[in-house]
Amino acid sequence: MDKATPHAGVIETDAVIVGAGPVGLFQIFELGLLEVKAHIIDSLAYPGGQCIELYPDKPIYDIPALPVVTGKELTDNLLKQVEPFGATFHLGQEVTTVEKQEDGRFFVATSKGTQFLTKTIFIAGGVGSFQPRTLKVDGIDKHEGSQVHYRVRNPSQFAGKNLLIVGGGDSALDWALNFCAGNADGNPHKAESVILVHRRDGFRAAPASVAKMRELCEQYEMQFIVGQVTDLDEGDDGQLKGVKVTGGDGVTRVVPCDEVLVFFGLSPKLGPIAEWGLALERKQIVVDTEKFSTSVPGIFAVGDVNTYPGKKKLILSGFHEAALAAFGAMPFINPEKRVHLQYTTTSPKLHKVLGVETPVFD
Amino acid sequence: MDKATPHAGVIETDAVIVGAGPVGLFQIFELGLLEVKAHIIDSLAYPGGQCIELYPDKPIYDIPALPVVTGKELTDNLLKQVEPFGATFHLGQEVTTVEKQEDGRFFVATSKGTQFLTKTIFIAGGVGSFQPRTLKVDGIDKHEGSQVHYRVRNPSQFAGKNLLIVGGGDSALDWALNFCAGNADGNPHKAESVILVHRRDGFRAAPASVAKMRELCEQYEMQFIVGQVTDLDEGDDGQLKGVKVTGGDGVTRVVPCDEVLVFFGLSPKLGPIAEWGLALERKQIVVDTEKFSTSVPGIFAVGDVNTYPGKKKLILSGFHEAALAAFGAMPFINPEKRVHLQYTTTSPKLHKVLGVETPVFD
Repeated sequence: MDKATPHAGVIETDAVIVGAGPVGLFQIFELGLLEVKAHIIDSLAYPGGQCIELYPDKPIYDIPALPVVTGKELTDNLLKQVEPFGATFHLGQEVTTVEKQEDGRFFVATSKGTQFLTKTIFIAGGVGSFQPRTLKVDGIDKHEGSQVHYRVRNPSQFAGKNLLIVGGGDSALDWALNFCAGNADGNPHKAESVILVHRRDGFRAAPASVAKMRELCEQYEMQFIVGQVTDLDEGDDGQLKGVKVTGGDGVTRVVPCDEVLVFFGLSPKLGPIAEWGLALERKQIVVDTEKFSTSVPGIFAVGDVNTYPGKKKLILSGFHEAALAAFGAMPFINPEKRVHLQYTTTSPKLHKVLGVETPVFD
Repeated sequence: MDKATPHAGVIETDAVIVGAGPVGLFQIFELGLLEVKAHIIDSLAYPGGQCIELYPDKPIYDIPALPVVTGKELTDNLLKQVEPFGATFHLGQEVTTVEKQEDGRFFVATSKGTQFLTKTIFIAGGVGSFQPRTLKVDGIDKHEGSQVHYRVRNPSQFAGKNLLIVGGGDSALDWALNFCAGNADGNPHKAESVILVHRRDGFRAAPASVAKMRELCEQYEMQFIVGQVTDLDEGDDGQLKGVKVTGGDGVTRVVPCDEVLVFFGLSPKLGPIAEWGLALERKQIVVDTEKFSTSVPGIFAVGDVNTYPGKKKLILSGFHEAALAAFGAMPFINPEKRVHLQYTTTSPKLHKVLGVETPVFD
């Protein structure tokens, strides 16, 4: 874990939520009902977590009282529900540092340099942060970031190069077309050559992109090879000269290239949370079922990231855990305050917090 | 508890759910996903429990991903969600008998004579069944059902009688008007006289009913007394001759009458569940947090009726508990079956169970 020290702009707060998936969002709500304002961090650039990243348009059937809802709708509903509580979103950044301070608070810093001093932390990390799936070939690690790439941050670095693009989804196809010589005039990052490698002659990409790719292949503007990258071809200087591709025919051929771009999609990783010193069991954070506290008092874990006897990885379970964790955290946030369960249907105090009118009933 | 023995029409089943409030309804769903069909019993004549009985039109704000929903909407949504699972509803009846059988199953009988032999029981009794609030006056119990009434089952029994009606809500007003001599001609159950007693000169009833009552009082067709029933006036034969009403002026007067009808609304009572031999703590059923099993293996308790460390009486918590209880019950229902958690978003098997199409994604 990176080391960092508090800077002048450090945010002092009662609660930091790590993960803005459905359970992290609902944690805002449950803390809000107890009048606790939260800051929420996510590695993705938008809230919703898996629901948005993996199944925005797929129907979910097991959210109680929502017979069918898509991941996007679920996220939108939750965002609307937490609106009254004015949480601050810190997106597109990962937590890099968590350190207990002498005053009992936690110092939290992110990859973008955002810093917090917080009384409590709620880990709603789901199955982890989304990381690109890597190409499993011996020795490939040392080329990562120089000649092997899993994302394109700066397209111009590939201009004029001989590119080998691996993958069969939209990202692979889109970048292949984008870098291809056959692209429109004035392409600012036109490659010298583009070879697309995919394990089969079928694609998960948009049909129009696939058709365009096949057209460019027929025009010899790019090349498509059915096969899998099984080895590297390195020069005496250790630089990558190309890769070895084993085709459907079982024959392995050397394919020369300057740069390898791999687009195998994203896969979730627990990531740095694993190094925060919390008790883990099979890469999951061990919690109690009363407060959903981790082994470190003041740090709670809710949703798919935690484990306890009977745990089921259901969104519903994370919602319930968030409610109990909010109550469990109150002694850390405001030890003097006596907390009573109130009902949103009848409590004028909660109506004020929610920003709604209390209906008049005798 | 009443004794009963199985009759020929006994229903053999895997699961009986006691209580058709929101959590009982969701228990149908969670069992349904595991391909278990349930029978569900409720003392009310309709599903929805408290949500329908106490706040059908009041907004609830803390159901996850439903920023605002009324008790009626919540119930309707849940009824829609459980539709695919074909549960059988047994309404307007209370469970009167629960007996463990030698074969490990439970014999369950209701007040309507419905009988079950079931492998598992899920108590989703909420705060209990709804019972009329009683008039707290010494010695009143022995008149209950003869001269003191908390509900009107057969209006004709009050025809030609001198009635004293106690209460200030819709039920009290509606019955007062209904039995009143000033009612339309041909009133089949017109009383000899009607006196309404309410603790204050203000009503929770519909304004039109209140206006009608005042009009009838001005016409001397009925009488309204502000006061509280503080004692009974019994004859030498022990029969009720009238009641003593203490008015706002502090003076207690004898008010003669034949029958007393009390409408103080409904209040929930745990009722016979308290006598099933389950471990209780402050009138709540003790459960573990892994399977939400009671102290009797095969009987589970979910929702407001149970207690465990950290328990909060939230509808949301009951939903989560229902999910875990369903998994916890599987060894009793089908010990051979290996149960895996599947997701409604991706599992073709669950799509079949839900009766929906599996979307085609590559």
